[in-house]
Amino acid sequence: MNANLIRSAIHVAAVCGMYLATAMLLPALVDLYYRDDHWRVFAVSAFMTGGISLLTATATRGAPPPFSKRFGFILVNVLWIVFSIAGVVPIYFSSLGLTFGQAIFEAVSAVTTTGSTSISGLDAMPKGLLMWRSLLHWLGGIGIVALGLFILPFLRVGGMSFFRMESSDNTSDRPFARLATFTRAFIAIYVGATALCAVAYDIGGMTRFDAINHAMSTISTGGFSTHDASFGNFGDNRFLLWTATFFMLLGSLPFSIMILFAVRRRVDTLRDPQIVVFLGYVCVFSILAAVYNHLKNGVDFGYALTHSFFNFASIFSTTGFASEDYTQWGAFVVAASFIATFMGGCSGSTSGGIKAYRFVILFQTVHVGLKKLIYPDAVYSVRYGRLTVDAETQKSVLVFFFAFVFIWAMGSLAMGALGYDIATSLSSVLTALANVGPGVGNVIGPAGNFSAMNDPAFYLLSFLMLLGRLEVLSVMVLLLPTFWRN
Amino acid sequence: MNANLIRSAIHVAAVCGMYLATAMLLPALVDLYYRDDHWRVFAVSAFMTGGISLLTATATRGAPPPFSKRFGFILVNVLWIVFSIAGVVPIYFSSLGLTFGQAIFEAVSAVTTTGSTSISGLDAMPKGLLMWRSLLHWLGGIGIVALGLFILPFLRVGGMSFFRMESSDNTSDRPFARLATFTRAFIAIYVGATALCAVAYDIGGMTRFDAINHAMSTISTGGFSTHDASFGNFGDNRFLLWTATFFMLLGSLPFSIMILFAVRRRVDTLRDPQIVVFLGYVCVFSILAAVYNHLKNGVDFGYALTHSFFNFASIFSTTGFASEDYTQWGAFVVAASFIATFMGGCSGSTSGGIKAYRFVILFQTVHVGLKKLIYPDAVYSVRYGRLTVDAETQKSVLVFFFAFVFIWAMGSLAMGALGYDIATSLSSVLTALANVGPGVGNVIGPAGNFSAMNDPAFYLLSFLMLLGRLEVLSVMVLLLPTFWRN
Repeated sequence: MNANLIRSAIHVAAVCGMYLATAMLLPALVDLYYRDDHWRVFAVSAFMTGGISLLTATATRGAPPPFSKRFGFILVNVLWIVFSIAGVVPIYFSSLGLTFGQAIFEAVSAVTTTGSTSISGLDAMPKGLLMWRSLLHWLGGIGIVALGLFILPFLRVGGMSFFRMESSDNTSDRPFARLATFTRAFIAIYVGATALCAVAYDIGGMTRFDAINHAMSTISTGGFSTHDASFGNFGDNRFLLWTATFFMLLGSLPFSIMILFAVRRRVDTLRDPQIVVFLGYVCVFSILAAVYNHLKNGVDFGYALTHSFFNFASIFSTTGFASEDYTQWGAFVVAASFIATFMGGCSGSTSGGIKAYRFVILFQTVHVGLKKLIYPDAVYSVRYGRLTVDAETQKSVLVFFFAFVFIWAMGSLAMGALGYDIATSLSSVLTALANVGPGVGNVIGPAGNFSAMNDPAFYLLSFLMLLGRLEVLSVMVLLLPTFWRN
Repeated sequence: MNANLIRSAIHVAAVCGMYLATAMLLPALVDLYYRDDHWRVFAVSAFMTGGISLLTATATRGAPPPFSKRFGFILVNVLWIVFSIAGVVPIYFSSLGLTFGQAIFEAVSAVTTTGSTSISGLDAMPKGLLMWRSLLHWLGGIGIVALGLFILPFLRVGGMSFFRMESSDNTSDRPFARLATFTRAFIAIYVGATALCAVAYDIGGMTRFDAINHAMSTISTGGFSTHDASFGNFGDNRFLLWTATFFMLLGSLPFSIMILFAVRRRVDTLRDPQIVVFLGYVCVFSILAAVYNHLKNGVDFGYALTHSFFNFASIFSTTGFASEDYTQWGAFVVAASFIATFMGGCSGSTSGGIKAYRFVILFQTVHVGLKKLIYPDAVYSVRYGRLTVDAETQKSVLVFFFAFVFIWAMGSLAMGALGYDIATSLSSVLTALANVGPGVGNVIGPAGNFSAMNDPAFYLLSFLMLLGRLEVLSVMVLLLPTFWRN
């Protein structure tokens, strides 16, 4: 039974591997266009990855198992692992001479849309490789939205989401037709938003290559740049900074809302409370940091506000671009950026972190818990907008929070054992788990990168990025002996 | 109604204030014995505190309100505030010339049995003042055990405790007689353990004065020493170190267990799972740190093990003594001591932190939550030893955990705004909230103290120590408008 589930999951993943092999031809073309011999790496990688995927897919053919939760969990894990392994091939075999840990870190950081980079010297890197990193972000973004919209709610890991909301309208008699419509709408929105973003970047003065790459890593809230200086490369270009801020925030909003709007022209779902909360905390943190920077360092307020919004939108959306080293603005901004790393965007988006809808539920649960201390027999309900959150959902959100913090603590302990100081340990594990990108401190701060880390740290952080991307519990569930019992 | 509750709570607190004023005569006698003119400070403070308490108690006389949860919450908060205010009088008026923030920090740190000190130069300080600090620890320890045993379970904040356990035996027909018996047994155990500890310290080579002071701050898991170097003052005295380790751990065990043993000669409650978990994590962390220190720094293993057990027992018990600067052992030990600061001892003890019984429930809740992801319709129960933990208790523990982490994050943000670096911010807030004592880093690490902090930081950390001491929720509940509505 288990063997059948794993075989079938690997089959699906191998088919995806063939698509990824095909996708490698794009960076090959880019290298050819720029007359860079490095196209051969992509051609060979595509051939290898495609061949192995084809063989694996053939070897694992068979009747698909009836869809069950157990199959769902196995599939999700196998998909992201295969996605990472296929992604690493051209990175590891590139001319950069990376260690395997470094390469796997880069690939996992790409597919999980984290955006921490283990490579310095991006500006001089083969263009195809830069394109590959951005493309993995972009595809990873599609993967995570599909996961968040269509699979996690079924597995009851994502909490409140799309289908739960949809069930309140009465057109659900043809679920598969609906699924196809929604998928088409989602792809159209995702591609459209990326194109719009690229055009805006182009207008703002980026080269066409930079515009396309940054658009892909903006919409996916990934964060890889084609420059070591990230957005700092473009200086104080207000048009670019506000454009990026807008699209990073867009990528953090629930795609379900946009899909429903596109398919049904309905806007009432815009009143999803997580959107208000998310945009609320982005504004509060950004304005506070801008005022602080203005008062403390005498920076022009318009400049301070622009860069504050850009960098905090970047952290809250879990993108990870930086327009400058905001940790130099002062201790408050360091603490604020650290705390912001936990928080994340909305569910059903490309962003990571704990996510705004969970905070909505957490705060209400605490509020109700406190009221029940005074009036234990009174009946209070936890509300999410117009919906009532049942006790199981409340508990699952609380359990997620504990699991997240616990894994953060254990990961930091492991980073300590690998020799990293406490701020770097806490920050690197947090930024990996929340899929943000930069951390704080000299090594992994917005002005630095992860290239100086040791290989065990790369493996550990790669695992944590995957764990965070799959909402922690979807991976932890595989560790239960119960899971594998028939 | 509210006015009556507050009046009555202040009345009770003022009566306690008179006892505290009387207690100030002890350090006055100590100063007289050592022929130190500083006894006048205590005499005047006792007179002032006693007088004000007497006036207040007289002014607030009246029929006591029927005991309600709301009265319980108000009483607990008022008691600890008055306790802190009475404690600060001789510290602020002492010859040390402290700022008011510094003095209030010292007093709150004492009564909450935290043990962070804002004073350097302890060795040269008037003996009476040293005795006062230890005495506040010791009385604070009595207060917190009484709170944990008799009041918090009634307020449903402490979670599983004494009375819940007691309800399983059938002798509960005369609750007040039982209460008196238990209180007497508790005082006898507390005084007895302190005396034993003092005698052992005396045998181990401490001066009589040091022995008494350290015994009081050991049993209360407080952590104030009479020396700037804390236990480092006594060098590598293995007898003293293991004695302290034993008594710190003793102070972290549930007093209910010891009381039941004393009153009923029952030992079956020794199987309380939190004891096993607590002693388990103390051993695991201590042994790992010892092996690490031995291998990395080539320290003799017996030495490494002794100091590792001492310092980790000190952190886990939330005492806060240090035998040397263990943060110099290496990055792993820094991370381990940071994580250990969260964890705390057992419920119904003098220790703080999140506490072992909560971890027992948290892990089981996560385990059940994961199993329910696979089999949503199966019925699993969360067990605490032989007891089943009901859904409300599970949720209250999860809510506590979220509230604790949230306040930690917000407190760290505030420390950032006051200009402290991220490691100091995170660590100082955590050590205050968990009532441990030392943090990590150069400033507040085991080799440093809090004397260089600014006054706003002292006020903030004092508030956090009280918040942690009263199990967070007992204070937060007062912030609800619902609480004050009739």
